[in-house]
Amino acid sequence: MSELENRIRDKSLLSKIMKPEDTIKFFEEAGAGKRSVNLGWSGFTPVGYPKVVPIALADHVEKNNLQGKWKFNLFTGASVGAETEDRWATLDMIDRRWPYQTGKNIAKGINSGKIKFGDKHLSMFPQDLKYGFYTKDEGGKLDIAIIEASAITEDGNIVLTGAVGSAPEIIDIADKIIVEINTGLPSFEGMHDIVVSDLPPYRKIIPITDLRQRIGTPWCPTDKSKIIAIVESTLPDNGRALRGTDEVAQAIADNIIDFFTTEVKAGRLPKNLLPLQSGVGSIANAVVGGLVNSPFENLTVYTEVLQDTFLPFLDSGKCKYINCTSLSLSNEGFSEWWEKFDKYKEMVLMRPQQISNNPEVIRRLGVIAMNTPVEFDIYAHANSTNVGGSRMINGIGGSGDFERNAFISIMHAPSVRPTKTDEFGISGVVPKVPHVDHTEHDIDVLVTEQGLADLRGLAPKDRAREIIKKCAHPAYKDYLFDYLERAEKATGYAHEPHILSEAYKLHISLEENGTMRFWNK
Amino acid sequence: MSELENRIRDKSLLSKIMKPEDTIKFFEEAGAGKRSVNLGWSGFTPVGYPKVVPIALADHVEKNNLQGKWKFNLFTGASVGAETEDRWATLDMIDRRWPYQTGKNIAKGINSGKIKFGDKHLSMFPQDLKYGFYTKDEGGKLDIAIIEASAITEDGNIVLTGAVGSAPEIIDIADKIIVEINTGLPSFEGMHDIVVSDLPPYRKIIPITDLRQRIGTPWCPTDKSKIIAIVESTLPDNGRALRGTDEVAQAIADNIIDFFTTEVKAGRLPKNLLPLQSGVGSIANAVVGGLVNSPFENLTVYTEVLQDTFLPFLDSGKCKYINCTSLSLSNEGFSEWWEKFDKYKEMVLMRPQQISNNPEVIRRLGVIAMNTPVEFDIYAHANSTNVGGSRMINGIGGSGDFERNAFISIMHAPSVRPTKTDEFGISGVVPKVPHVDHTEHDIDVLVTEQGLADLRGLAPKDRAREIIKKCAHPAYKDYLFDYLERAEKATGYAHEPHILSEAYKLHISLEENGTMRFWNK
Repeated sequence: MSELENRIRDKSLLSKIMKPEDTIKFFEEAGAGKRSVNLGWSGFTPVGYPKVVPIALADHVEKNNLQGKWKFNLFTGASVGAETEDRWATLDMIDRRWPYQTGKNIAKGINSGKIKFGDKHLSMFPQDLKYGFYTKDEGGKLDIAIIEASAITEDGNIVLTGAVGSAPEIIDIADKIIVEINTGLPSFEGMHDIVVSDLPPYRKIIPITDLRQRIGTPWCPTDKSKIIAIVESTLPDNGRALRGTDEVAQAIADNIIDFFTTEVKAGRLPKNLLPLQSGVGSIANAVVGGLVNSPFENLTVYTEVLQDTFLPFLDSGKCKYINCTSLSLSNEGFSEWWEKFDKYKEMVLMRPQQISNNPEVIRRLGVIAMNTPVEFDIYAHANSTNVGGSRMINGIGGSGDFERNAFISIMHAPSVRPTKTDEFGISGVVPKVPHVDHTEHDIDVLVTEQGLADLRGLAPKDRAREIIKKCAHPAYKDYLFDYLERAEKATGYAHEPHILSEAYKLHISLEENGTMRFWNK
Repeated sequence: MSELENRIRDKSLLSKIMKPEDTIKFFEEAGAGKRSVNLGWSGFTPVGYPKVVPIALADHVEKNNLQGKWKFNLFTGASVGAETEDRWATLDMIDRRWPYQTGKNIAKGINSGKIKFGDKHLSMFPQDLKYGFYTKDEGGKLDIAIIEASAITEDGNIVLTGAVGSAPEIIDIADKIIVEINTGLPSFEGMHDIVVSDLPPYRKIIPITDLRQRIGTPWCPTDKSKIIAIVESTLPDNGRALRGTDEVAQAIADNIIDFFTTEVKAGRLPKNLLPLQSGVGSIANAVVGGLVNSPFENLTVYTEVLQDTFLPFLDSGKCKYINCTSLSLSNEGFSEWWEKFDKYKEMVLMRPQQISNNPEVIRRLGVIAMNTPVEFDIYAHANSTNVGGSRMINGIGGSGDFERNAFISIMHAPSVRPTKTDEFGISGVVPKVPHVDHTEHDIDVLVTEQGLADLRGLAPKDRAREIIKKCAHPAYKDYLFDYLERAEKATGYAHEPHILSEAYKLHISLEENGTMRFWNK
């Protein structure tokens, strides 16, 4: 028996095995007479997404000159690998795309009006998909789900690979399912804890009070009669490159570790802190690195994605357990993962994104949230998505889920970034962010390499002084203080003083002069 | 035995009875050497707040010329009666004030830099208070709680009056408690279901799957050794005037009822809808009135405040059960309430605001949220708090709790309002709101008297066209479409096109010309 046949334990499904190119007819049937085919993909933040079927579809479009003529609405957990979706974007195959993306050509499509993209809190996306909100004009279902799987159980239920994401809901609401069994990887079976969103008024309690608790099944409940094809894949995930850290990130991390130390001393945090959530990138890497070298012990992580940097954190013995919805590891990270799989699988649990990012659980557990926005303003509103207010980068992702519901909501960013012509061309602290993803009502602590502003209990004008003083780069401090004082006078010391005609002066200068420092151009 | 003595069932506490003016010494003691005394008050949206002690304190300040010299930090559920807090503001007695207010003189104090005010999601405020975040520089406690009560139980636990709000947490963390027993009103005993926020990692599941479920006690757990005084009050709540409705509100309500009908027909809502949350004011009144006359039956309400308009809703038999944290009734409303108390008490349950507004419960029950912002913009961001971006009105209240977590998140506002010189001087739909309280990631449906824009599944530029087409007033449609098209061209059809130098042109015109219609000045 082949490895593929081994992995399909429900032998009645062996008859569904076919080649990737043989599945194209299903998409043609589903798309007949429609503007776009509604697709659901497994996968979350380049892991666990289908590969050989999307590539076969792209090849088909390319060979038959169907660019711009055959379109798909693509719903998935978060982002997927560039070799699939980004290529689809290049071939103009994507009509609508939800709820998060990373990819040069997708971003280009989104920011030129070609791809209709919407970003949504990642905990809400699968529930709203299940509620039928995204395909409400076509009955609320998906035409076809393409799911990467480790195996199919004796009863025809799908066992996922390196991510859960929105796959349980996609499997649930799709009319038809195509399964890609990835035999190029060992099976992830046993690492998932699956529950599917219910419809109100019958939604259930999420009974997690300790992140080690399993509340579901290790496989996705699957109506096996919907499985129309099973294909074999041996392609690896196109993981993100391992990213290191730098001096600025290190300084930010040091500020955060100091803050934790103070909070523990004051009795506002237990000695082993509370479950940690962290975003991705160099600052997150530095924070986790800082924790490895800290006196804190018995730490836990309740987060969206497990990155490379968490592996040494687990190895160090400092971190006892991680919940996530995706193993966002690089190729090097995955090598290490599989080497120590027997150990890691006892320390990591993958949950659906509606659970990993759920307000109910985040608030109950008292998660400490840490995420990087593009910029934040003097009153503690943060922009995570649209540069200059207009141009989408990736999407809000889970940052809103965590920042809104956390015990302590931290956002961190460099105080300044260079442009082509000015080493301090972009300030991370601005008078008013041109796009708000997180409001002043949601954020407790702001951090740059300059310092940390603890905003808890502060009114807006006091907040502004604290943020400028602690977080702004020296190159921008004078201007920001001056703006604040003039705004206070202009509004008669109103609650949150702004001069609307000047609020975006830094951003307009950046666009026109290549630096926010209009006084320096 | 007097009625006061009757209400104090723990007879060991009878010795604590005193006159309001005799409590002043406690505040003097607590304030010795401090900038401001940290006070917690019971009460929520002018009901259930302490009266005779705050009035005695105000009298004392007035008589002794202590204006501006004796200051208090005031933490309460939401707003309280004008005869207490607003008078305190006039006497310059308030230093810091959290998390929501209504009052002419408080607003004046806030918008002139005198009162340090912060608004916070009402579900989060009591938990953050309990976490010690608001008084972290002074040990995280409150000096004194002043609590209006119906009674004290045999074991010394406090039974509240017409609101729960943050009283359970305030009683929990206050060093000392002064109880005002209101013998001027019948007892509300049995109408409350009290649980107190826990500290993570020991927070518990909130086990509500049906809004009839009781999960707590009818009284607030109270350490009776902290009770330093009991005073009698006979003063009624200074309830809000009953507000009717008008043609515009009626048209908005009609649009919403039509939407519900469509959703039920499409199978996306059950026949009895889902638990309803509604804000306050004429639109809320019209919506509830519309439901009374609708074919929908067996409705339930999971909301923050029960207003006058809910009484005929209960009388009609259409509404079976209401959860709230406060009976925000007018004097006329309370007369009716007490007349039919035996009926109403079986249909209404008051919960702490951390429960009435809790994301966990709101999402699980699938609440339908309806709130009125100041204005919303073409991409579906809404401003609920700061007029012109700077001047605070009341605070975000619970709107963020509900809009973020609801099954369907609806915001409704008139498309246009008059100014002194222009009957269409203020548009409810603007290019960009100057303060964001609710983001595009949170709102599903926007409604004005012009129409209803269902934004579910729409990308920003499509959203903008739908909002302008359906919701904007004819006097602003051309300008808004023109702005959108020029912004698209200027940004190369970016994700969410804006022209930053023009985004606030309407607001600046309003300030300078008394109308947003700069083309018409």
